Amino acid sequence: MVESSALVVFSGGQDSTTCLYWALKNFSKVIAISFDYGQKHKIELESAKKITKLANVEHEILEFDLFSKLGGNSLTDDIDIEDAKDKKGLPNSFVPGRNILFLSYVACIAYSKKIKNIVTGVCETDFSGYPDCRDDTIKSLQVTLNLAMETKFVIHTPLMWLSKAKSIDLALEVGAMDALAYSHTCYNGVYPPCMKCPACILREKGFKEANQVDPIFSRN
Amino acid sequence: MVESSALVVFSGGQDSTTCLYWALKNFSKVIAISFDYGQKHKIELESAKKITKLANVEHEILEFDLFSKLGGNSLTDDIDIEDAKDKKGLPNSFVPGRNILFLSYVACIAYSKKIKNIVTGVCETDFSGYPDCRDDTIKSLQVTLNLAMETKFVIHTPLMWLSKAKSIDLALEVGAMDALAYSHTCYNGVYPPCMKCPACILREKGFKEANQVDPIFSRN
Repeated sequence: MVESSALVVFSGGQDSTTCLYWALKNFSKVIAISFDYGQKHKIELESAKKITKLANVEHEILEFDLFSKLGGNSLTDDIDIEDAKDKKGLPNSFVPGRNILFLSYVACIAYSKKIKNIVTGVCETDFSGYPDCRDDTIKSLQVTLNLAMETKFVIHTPLMWLSKAKSIDLALEVGAMDALAYSHTCYNGVYPPCMKCPACILREKGFKEANQVDPIFSRN
Repeated sequence: MVESSALVVFSGGQDSTTCLYWALKNFSKVIAISFDYGQKHKIELESAKKITKLANVEHEILEFDLFSKLGGNSLTDDIDIEDAKDKKGLPNSFVPGRNILFLSYVACIAYSKKIKNIVTGVCETDFSGYPDCRDDTIKSLQVTLNLAMETKFVIHTPLMWLSKAKSIDLALEVGAMDALAYSHTCYNGVYPPCMKCPACILREKGFKEANQVDPIFSRN
């Protein structure tokens, strides 16, 4: 088990970009793992590629088409993305169990590479109704994975208790601002971002509260 | 959530066949889920098809080729199957995290079908060194999945504390003996079974201790 190595679950979005740079500050070896899970917008993976290149980080993109087979959600299906909630109050972008499967798969890779640390950008503060992003879920998963593989992974969640504004402070601190110019957020998968979807609105609010200009509008 | 429905993780082996018939006794609707995970021996899936047909049970086979990508184990790679243990005492047929991924994926399907019960044939008694078959692991996973999906799955493990002989008693009790004729066990993927590999030896020992003749030798 290599104590100083980490795998980062890396979507190419704002949060995982901040986490990638946080990991680079905290571990001597970092590998970014992205999933191609049949998402409608390939712009996410393009962002992920650009950012890992900029950060000079090893990057693996894994196909994971289980969710497109399950269907019934707005991230992989041709359903309008809205902030509409279902009966449980979950937005229709909720892919049940997604984070559990992603993190479990990343743990399998970590095991095979003898890497101890796993980093994910989940956050309970700006909680969008995703129960698999909660602190309880992630801690329970760590226990499950360690029991299942008889190992001692640590799942790090540097953004868990940060507001969007505070996560921008962290991005500044770890030197992630240049990379955030290429991080993708917009649910509608367009560049420049639509600034109307819930994800764009949340991002804009965060930068405003942190008194920072979003570098996405001043890409090189 | 349909209280009386169950998904059975179904490999076509002896244990999951017993579990399938146990589920048929305990739930009014049962669906069997098999995984095509790049296993060397397709005979497993052929067994699964025969048995679900015999049991008249809905059967879904899901492709799950993540493990063949990870590699390094004797179930999917061209490595001799031995009972050899690695440094942790795990046999080289151990695919780290396999059960967690299978069960998590089955839980995603259960969620989408509004099914409450998940049945798996894992067993701690004839514990082959697989930590992901332990009772602690499965109970921890149930908690993780329920936190992650904000639901109330129950993972049933009818064989958890049974010896191989006792699981044959259970097979008799739930009417699974005819189906066991078609259940695949042999690690070498041959029929008739090799009777030399650890799996064949364990199966033979169980039938002997239960004073039963293995129906695999008297297929129709």
